[in-house]
Amino acid sequence: MTRQIRLNAFDMNCVGHIQHGLWTHPRDRSSQYTDLAYWTSLARTLERGLFDGLFLADVVGIYDVFGGGPDAALRHAVQVPVNDPLLLVPAMAVVTEHLGFGVTCNTTYEPPYLFARRMSTLDHLTRGRIGWNIVTGYLDSAARAMGLAGQAAHDDRYAAAEEYMDLLYNLWEHSWEDGAVVRDRARGVFTDPARVHAIRHTGRYAMEGIHLCEPSPQRTPVLFQAGASDRGRAFAARHAECVFVNGTSKPIVAALVADLRARAAAAGRKILVFVGATVVTGRTDAEARALFEDYRAHASAEAGLVHFSASTGIDFAAFGLDEPIRHYKTEANQSNVEAITTRADTAWTKRRLLDSMVLGSRQPPIMGSAEQVADELMAWVEQADVDGFNLSRTVMPECVETFVDLVVPLLQERGVYKSGYLSGTLRDKLFGHPRLLPPHPAAPAKRIQ
Amino acid sequence: MTRQIRLNAFDMNCVGHIQHGLWTHPRDRSSQYTDLAYWTSLARTLERGLFDGLFLADVVGIYDVFGGGPDAALRHAVQVPVNDPLLLVPAMAVVTEHLGFGVTCNTTYEPPYLFARRMSTLDHLTRGRIGWNIVTGYLDSAARAMGLAGQAAHDDRYAAAEEYMDLLYNLWEHSWEDGAVVRDRARGVFTDPARVHAIRHTGRYAMEGIHLCEPSPQRTPVLFQAGASDRGRAFAARHAECVFVNGTSKPIVAALVADLRARAAAAGRKILVFVGATVVTGRTDAEARALFEDYRAHASAEAGLVHFSASTGIDFAAFGLDEPIRHYKTEANQSNVEAITTRADTAWTKRRLLDSMVLGSRQPPIMGSAEQVADELMAWVEQADVDGFNLSRTVMPECVETFVDLVVPLLQERGVYKSGYLSGTLRDKLFGHPRLLPPHPAAPAKRIQ
Repeated sequence: MTRQIRLNAFDMNCVGHIQHGLWTHPRDRSSQYTDLAYWTSLARTLERGLFDGLFLADVVGIYDVFGGGPDAALRHAVQVPVNDPLLLVPAMAVVTEHLGFGVTCNTTYEPPYLFARRMSTLDHLTRGRIGWNIVTGYLDSAARAMGLAGQAAHDDRYAAAEEYMDLLYNLWEHSWEDGAVVRDRARGVFTDPARVHAIRHTGRYAMEGIHLCEPSPQRTPVLFQAGASDRGRAFAARHAECVFVNGTSKPIVAALVADLRARAAAAGRKILVFVGATVVTGRTDAEARALFEDYRAHASAEAGLVHFSASTGIDFAAFGLDEPIRHYKTEANQSNVEAITTRADTAWTKRRLLDSMVLGSRQPPIMGSAEQVADELMAWVEQADVDGFNLSRTVMPECVETFVDLVVPLLQERGVYKSGYLSGTLRDKLFGHPRLLPPHPAAPAKRIQ
Repeated sequence: MTRQIRLNAFDMNCVGHIQHGLWTHPRDRSSQYTDLAYWTSLARTLERGLFDGLFLADVVGIYDVFGGGPDAALRHAVQVPVNDPLLLVPAMAVVTEHLGFGVTCNTTYEPPYLFARRMSTLDHLTRGRIGWNIVTGYLDSAARAMGLAGQAAHDDRYAAAEEYMDLLYNLWEHSWEDGAVVRDRARGVFTDPARVHAIRHTGRYAMEGIHLCEPSPQRTPVLFQAGASDRGRAFAARHAECVFVNGTSKPIVAALVADLRARAAAAGRKILVFVGATVVTGRTDAEARALFEDYRAHASAEAGLVHFSASTGIDFAAFGLDEPIRHYKTEANQSNVEAITTRADTAWTKRRLLDSMVLGSRQPPIMGSAEQVADELMAWVEQADVDGFNLSRTVMPECVETFVDLVVPLLQERGVYKSGYLSGTLRDKLFGHPRLLPPHPAAPAKRIQ
């Protein structure tokens, strides 16, 4: 069988996500992100298009590197204001049956005992459709707002995240045995206490307690990760089931994917890899190009640069347009969007950066008729060895509707996209099994010591 | 106009809430608390009955005082397993337009910066229907699970809560000015940065940051509180808009209500007071009594005692049935359920306690035909000076459906219950104004220093 393409919509509970400035387009509705109906309508559209999931990004701080303050981010709505992503899931779950949800939550800031309960609750309410994109945070503004003196160093954050994961796995997988909940009305026994165990941890997350929730369909949510650094890739190889990568060219992404797959294989595991993509399409190539020009007229390269400043830690406001920009501080990157696309380059200037942000980010769109888009998506799968795409939004919701109406049927015709959902949980649908398998550390074997 | 009765359903994202053991009743569906449809159906029923709100309790720890461990609580499902309450709100908001939501969240354990965003997000998604029941926690098991050496002393928790509230008020009310969000597509300005301000706090919650969310309909959620201690009442007088009280007799509650109103008045404020109540009703008195006997046969007094052990800190398992129980450790109480009803008593025994728990708690039901129930509710309003009721559940969902079908129409006929919802936010509906008014500390005057 031809390799099947996986699709996630990539979105965020805010106005400007990846492609910036497009909220100014007259048809764009992204500033309605505070309305439930905006999200339930999106969820229905994604399920109509048989999307595997909706991947929700998040950030706890504010982008204040550009110009040395938050003004530009506020003005352009560059991921601020930004509402809580988890709270969108129950509403969208009401109107869908199969759509998965991959939600970004931060190990540095969410207390693990409460976070474990939130994810279990969502896994129950969605009947096993929840995923978690594990991030450790990278913004000084977030650390200050959370009352910390500053961020821990990059590798320390990952070391802390390892402990955090061990604690969560124990709460999710080992506090309540299968069969602990007996619901015996006649005997008046809801839970067999002999099968419920307190989890004890030492170290950074020293604690003792029973997980508050009975076992949910997946127990551990499907685990997403997007770190591109060496430490981030090592983390992904141990924990991630799905990895989200970015890059502007197929060879660059192919190299990253090969490295990730090799690391996972060394750990005895397989992963699904999703690459970020932006699609602008229409009934014809001409229609797509006209739409692109229309979108481009509303995009903001400056807003893209504000985002890029936060991602790299470089205040591009301080550079002249043609001044060489030699040093990228990529260590701080939350995702790998920029790291991958800039490491190979040396002769960047602000003008070149601005020129590259055609729709308000450094992610160049895949553009053309639905046939051309389908060709290009298949070429990415073939040449970069990715399993699917996290599709960034442009003008909402028409970009999603157009993709579902035009591209999805073509992918189905070509035999590279499902014609219906499989049954079961998100993990069942993606991997064919409901629980994590050995050697994953959360596989239901024995408690982590 | 006759004084209007306010109604909240009192519930919790778990199996056994107040009246314990009733999950064993063949018609009870409370063990379906993990299903979205269970909650959306409940929300629709409550809105059909024009309930002001759904009040959702919560607890972070596990009741492990009785017998010196969690076994009895687990066996009887006494508030364990317990899922996150906030995540129910978006789903129920999808299927309702007016129903309010008062959700219990803990100032000791929820990081304030993230919690502020959660409540703002819910206020946006519900279009201003969110309320917050402020609790500070009282369980050692919660402190241990959260990685703390132990709980702070009762008054220290309230002192910390005062700081927490000041920080939240500043984030909700003073970080984003009215009019900061301009959404000017033509100029490409979403937010006017001059009208957005970083909040800086010192003390326990030292931090600096801009609130992540644009202003929501209510900004500060409607504030509920239920502390019965002297310090708790002082806190309520300063902060609470709605106070939840409990007590087994009208004179006891009347005295508490008089004290709360006097304290609020001394602070220049008025409050709405809701008293906890359990109703068992039917078409006739005989039908109600038959239902009560049916329910009672499934209730568990032992489970009620497990809960009461946690509330009082006394291990009743260690007492003989007729051994006198002289000392109640009421300081630790989260709510005032038991404190009020036991302080006056001295000659309690375990047998008497068990006998008092007719439906699985010390809250005696109001029982009888709909006419008798309406009479009794009106008598409570008259004699105890309460504004309304937090109605505990018995057998779900029939207890809610029966109340809505039989009692609500009678209250309407008598002119003591609304025939339709008012427009606007929860605060508009309850108080006739959208924002808090001076002298409340969150009134939109100037930032708290």
